[in-house]
Parts: sequence; C-alpha cells; structure tokens
Amino acid sequence: MTADADIEALVRRLALEAKRASLALATTPTQTKNAVLLRAAASLRGPAGDAVIEANGRDLVVARELGLDDAMLDRLRLDRARVDGVAEGVEHVASLPDPVGEQVDQRRLPNGLEVARMRVPLGLIGIIYESRPNVTADAAALCIKSGNAVLLRGGKEAFHSNTAIAAVFGDALEAEGLPRAAATLLPTTDRAATLAMIRLDGVVDLVIPRGGEGLIHFVADNARVPVVRHYKGVCHVYVDGDADLEMALAIAINAKTQRPGVCNAMETLLVDEACADAFVPKALRALAGKRVEVHADDGVRARAGELAARVVPLEPEDWDREYLRLAMNFGVVDGIDGALAHVGRHGSNHTEAIVTEDPDKADRWLREVDASLVLVNASTRFNDGAQLGLGAEMGISTTKLHAYGPMGLSELCTLKWIGRGAGQVRA
Amino acid sequence: MTADADIEALVRRLALEAKRASLALATTPTQTKNAVLLRAAASLRGPAGDAVIEANGRDLVVARELGLDDAMLDRLRLDRARVDGVAEGVEHVASLPDPVGEQVDQRRLPNGLEVARMRVPLGLIGIIYESRPNVTADAAALCIKSGNAVLLRGGKEAFHSNTAIAAVFGDALEAEGLPRAAATLLPTTDRAATLAMIRLDGVVDLVIPRGGEGLIHFVADNARVPVVRHYKGVCHVYVDGDADLEMALAIAINAKTQRPGVCNAMETLLVDEACADAFVPKALRALAGKRVEVHADDGVRARAGELAARVVPLEPEDWDREYLRLAMNFGVVDGIDGALAHVGRHGSNHTEAIVTEDPDKADRWLREVDASLVLVNASTRFNDGAQLGLGAEMGISTTKLHAYGPMGLSELCTLKWIGRGAGQVRA
Repeated sequence: MTADADIEALVRRLALEAKRASLALATTPTQTKNAVLLRAAASLRGPAGDAVIEANGRDLVVARELGLDDAMLDRLRLDRARVDGVAEGVEHVASLPDPVGEQVDQRRLPNGLEVARMRVPLGLIGIIYESRPNVTADAAALCIKSGNAVLLRGGKEAFHSNTAIAAVFGDALEAEGLPRAAATLLPTTDRAATLAMIRLDGVVDLVIPRGGEGLIHFVADNARVPVVRHYKGVCHVYVDGDADLEMALAIAINAKTQRPGVCNAMETLLVDEACADAFVPKALRALAGKRVEVHADDGVRARAGELAARVVPLEPEDWDREYLRLAMNFGVVDGIDGALAHVGRHGSNHTEAIVTEDPDKADRWLREVDASLVLVNASTRFNDGAQLGLGAEMGISTTKLHAYGPMGLSELCTLKWIGRGAGQVRA
Repeated sequence: MTADADIEALVRRLALEAKRASLALATTPTQTKNAVLLRAAASLRGPAGDAVIEANGRDLVVARELGLDDAMLDRLRLDRARVDGVAEGVEHVASLPDPVGEQVDQRRLPNGLEVARMRVPLGLIGIIYESRPNVTADAAALCIKSGNAVLLRGGKEAFHSNTAIAAVFGDALEAEGLPRAAATLLPTTDRAATLAMIRLDGVVDLVIPRGGEGLIHFVADNARVPVVRHYKGVCHVYVDGDADLEMALAIAINAKTQRPGVCNAMETLLVDEACADAFVPKALRALAGKRVEVHADDGVRARAGELAARVVPLEPEDWDREYLRLAMNFGVVDGIDGALAHVGRHGSNHTEAIVTEDPDKADRWLREVDASLVLVNASTRFNDGAQLGLGAEMGISTTKLHAYGPMGLSELCTLKWIGRGAGQVRA
C-alpha cells in the first residue's frame, strides 16, 4: 500500500465517522448546539486558549524558518486579544437564530395536502483553507450551529494552531454528549488528503475551498462532490451622468480604501463621459490624497490636467486584475450601456455598484448586472454576511448554484419538502 | 487534430454561442418568452409537428434494426396525439408565473440600505437525457421560461426526433427576435461531446443528467461544472402502530401500483410490529389482488397465513432495490425507531411516508427523515412538480445542493442580492 493509499483510507475513515456524527447533529436541539459553542468560547477565553497560543508559537517558529514574509506571519499569529476575538465570534454565532427546522412556503394544495419546505442541514461539509487559524473556529461554529458536521483541512503553516482549536470544539461537543467527530480536523495537510476528501461522493455533501485561485482550480478540476466556489472579486463602481458627484466620490474612496486587501474592495472606477470632465479631476485629487495608485485609460488621462503625471497608463489586462492593495483602474465609458458592457466583460460576479439619481437607470442596473450583490448608491464593501444582516458567513459565493453571495447559516442548509395529509392518494 | 478534439472544439463553440444567447434571454420580458413558447406549441400542433412525427419514424426504423425492445420503442414513439401532448406541456409552461425578477427577503438595514434578493436565471443549463424525445421540448420550454439558455444532449435513438423538435424552438426564438442558440441541440451524441460539455467550467452553469445510474455516475465522475443529480428512488411507506389501517392500505396500494415504473413509486412497505398481526394478512391479500410480487422478511412471512406460499423470501440486498415494476419488499420493524433506522440505511433521499394518527410521531418523522419529500398520511406518488404545485419540473433532485426535490422554474434560477442606498459607505 502506498503512502497516498494510506492517507486516502485514513481520510475516508474520518469522513465516515464525521458523516455519522452529522446525523446526530441534524436533530440536536438549538439549546445543546448553543451550549457547545458557548463552552468552546469559554475554553478559548481560559487555559485552552493559552494552549492555542502556545501551539501557535510552534507554528510561528516553523513559519519563520520557512521564510514566510511579515504579512503572512501576521495573518498566522494568535495572541490573547486575537483568541478572545475568535471566542467572541463563536459567541456571536451562538446568539444567531437556528435555521434548522424553519418552515417556509407553507400552503394547502387543492387535494387538502398541507405542504411546506423545511430547512435542514446539508450533512457533512468540507472546508479547505489556507493560513489563518481563526477559520477553524469560525467554520466549526457555523457548521455546528447549522446542524452540520465539518471536515476541516487547514493550511500546513497553521497546523498546530488548528489542531489546538479543533480540540477545543471536540471537547465541547463531547461535554454536551455529542460525537467529537462532528468537527474533525484532518491530521495531515498532504495534498493526497485534500484529493481524497473532495472525491468522497455520497459522504461529503459540500466542499468550500477558501484561498487562492490555484487552490480553487485544483478543487474544481478534481472534485466529485459538490463545490461552492469563491473566485476573485473584480468589483466596479460606475458613476453615472445623473450621479450626485460628491456621493460618488465618497463611495469610490470608501470602496477602494476602507480595506483594500479584501474581495469586496473596488478594483475599477468607471465614469460616464457625460460627467467625466467634472468628476475625473476631483476623483484623481481625492485618490492621490489617499495614496492610491491609479491605472487610467485614455479618457481619464485626457482629463487629468496637472495630475496626468501621477497616473499609470492602463494596460488592457489591468481591467481583469484584482489588486488587493491601494491600486485601481479608472476609465471613461459611454453611459450605462458602456458600463453594463464593461462589467459584463470584466466583472467577476461579485459586487457591482452604480451611483445615479435616475431611478430607471438604477432599476436597469439592479436587473441586468449579473453579480452576487448589485448596488445602487452604496459602497461595494457591503457584500459581507454581517453587513447584510446574516450575522456571520462562511465566505461569499460567486457561482450561482445553491448560494450566490454571502453564505450564512441558512445557506449551509437546504430545504426539504414536507407534506401532512389525511390519506391522500394519487388519482 | 483527433476526432475527439474536433468534437470538443465544436461543443465549445456551440456552448459559447448558447452562453451569449443566455445574456439576451436573462433580460427578455415575460411576454416575449411566452410568445416563443406559444409559437413553438402552435408549430408542433401544425405542419412542424408532422415533420417531427416523420423524423421520429426514421428513428424508429433505426431503433428496430438495433433491436430495441417494445418498451423502449414505445418510449421513443411519437404520434399526433403525443405531439399534441408535448405542445400542451409547452403551453402549460407558458401559463406559469415568470420567476425572473421576483424579489424576496426584502428588508431595511439599520444604516438605511434597502436590501432584497432577486430571482435571476442561472445562465446556460446543460441537459443530458436518454430516449424520450419529449424531454427536448420540456427542457427547452422550462429553460426559456426561466430565462436560461439550454444545451441539449439527447439520446442517440431519438436523434432525428430531437433535431426536429429543437428546430421548432430555434424557429420560434428567431421569429420573436431572440438568438436561436438559446436552445441548442448538440449535433452529435458521441460520448466525447458529453464529456466536453460537462467540463466547460465557467461556460455551462449547471448540468442536469437524466437517465440511468451509469450516466449519472459518468457525469458525477467527470464533470467540472456544477451538477444536480437524480439517483434512484427507493421510497418507503411506514405503517405505524397508531395508523388507520384502511388508510395505510390505500396509501400503500396507490404508492406501489398507481404507476409502478417511476421513481416516486413505493419499493418497500414497513409495518410496526405493534399492528403487524392485523395489517400483514390484509395487505398481502390486497397486494395479491393487484398481482404485486412481494418480497417478505421473516416477520411478514410468519404472519402470512395461507398467503405464505405466494410471497418471495426477501434477500438482504432486496432492501436497496429499485424494482420499477409491480414488485416490492415488505418487512416488520420495531416501531418508529426501527423505521427511522431502516430508512436511514436503505432510503435514497427521495420520498418517505409514515401513516400514523399520532401527531408527535408524525412531527418526528417530518423532522428526522432525510429525504426530498417527507410525508405523513399520503402517497409517495406526490413527489412531482405538478402535484406539489410547481406547475412543471425538470426532474427531482435527490442531492441537497441548490435544489432538493422537484426542480421547477424557480429552481432553475438563483437569488442575487440587490441593495438600494443613499450614499451608504462602510465605517
């Protein structure tokens, strides 16, 4: 037997145990699920949290030896304040309404059968993620609260931290009489383990890969189980000729600079040529004040005046870039038709905003743009589970199957049909 | 270039054309989509329908030469009455409400942002199906009405029939000013074409395989695009000790015999040992009267009396069989716990019914059984889009991602988030 075959057998065994645990979780009362989360949070705030910080210290030693850069070390690092923040996130999930058992679309059919759709867990959810160890706690909390078991495949840099956090959840499950396998961290980060996990059709009900495009393509290419994907976010703000230009500027600045390294930050600002003469100089000044590197097309450069020297000439491939830093594209389009065509070609189905005072153009934008969140007169930064009122999220789906947009507790469930009859048979 | 590479290039080209057509369909008004369907239906009722019947005649000649059995020839055959039936189905889809643009979950966030979720088409849907040519019309009608383009890969036995039906939809699309590529039949049924289609990640938004388990496993194993699957239906009726036995008998007979060859027919009847003495002889007599072949476990055989000689001793593997004919399993279980355990082990997540007068046991069954439709006191035959009030369906999903149960027009859509603001930015 090869090493890969050993790993495959191990992953299958752990997944089958987790799948069995999912049956127990599916019918666990809300109160018990909340008790697990509150117990895990309390542990993280106490000595178990110290053990997590100690384990994280070992990860950091290895990471420094491996030469990880400062930004990566910072993402990996856990201290008391960060562990308390993780605990707070778990407590917040405990405070959210339980989606399981909720009934929607209730109606009475002509034959008297009372039908409805009841929200139920998906079963066993696999999460594949990279360096940040807090994802272990977030994913475990969201899956447990939504009645699912979870199979966690964390990044190798965070292996000790993840193991310590998963143990906290295992202990909390056990203390409440639930199988600890309901939150199972794979004991290896070998690629063979990932491959085994994403091929367990009929055992793993959903896989969510969180990470770079390479990871997501590997999963998409090799998975036999359903996958909800999060590709990159190339988000646009389009400033229409009928926009309030002060509002437009405030939205663009917020969308780009409030937190530039995230997927819902703006990458491209488009302006209607009808208001470009007024908007471009104003916007370039404000962006320069925020030290934003602007890649400008000919239309913008022609209107840049004394700021022309401060912009970078835009290359065609820039339109598809996700900068994830204080850099962006800026271009002039021919009205809403031009903007819709541009977003259709270069958008990533993530978040697209129009700024306009014209309700017809606003409606057209809302209907015609294909993105998980389409906005009028608001910042792209609102595409986020907490901001949209879901409480917490597992990530933002930019594919359309099952969930499109932030995945909260409800999106970790499905709807089964139920029917109450009085002996109805089919004629 | 190999023949397979040629086919792959052809499928990619057709799929990209269909994808472009999907953009037009997504924003086509309801009235125009209905006009396409009514025009196609009118054509089928007229000379174009005669051309379909003539093409079907050519398929039947080939099918007889290939030695297809009578049942398969019957499924393939189209005559005037059947073509009129297909037209009627298309007219029915035209009469259903348009799901596109529907807004749900509207609310106002604390910052004043008005958010909602708007139903939008998935984009390009691929359907892979086997012999029955009416699926071409059903799938085209459902996809067009839900604003999607469709890529059809029909069975090779029905190739001429499918080509003629697809032409009717192409002509109707064109006559209403829409691209005929919105309903594209692949011009080859070669497996390389299927493979090419299910690997077009980013072009094909969803593939629905309809057919035998072999086809579905081939798709599940090889797809890179999202797949909604329909595995087999091993549906149970559990007669509880607190059941009305007359009702139970009527439901069991209907579930097995009203149409035995379909996925929502009952395959296994379970009875609580608390009422087995009374129910078993009564049920065996009724089933014998309907000429049903009964595979009975020891508990049933012990109570069979003079009918013991008429039952087949049940083999353990029978519990997992989908008979699809007038044959079934019959077993005794230890109350609702025994029934839940049995269904958990042998059920196929399709349709599961309890017959009971006890509301607590009814509730427990509804909550705990993991199936796309869970019923109390009604026949399993109700798991059907038309019966559940969806109007028409593309099939019944027994996997939990995106849709669980019948897939109607709404399930061929997804929900995007929309937000109307007044300049909101993130703090």
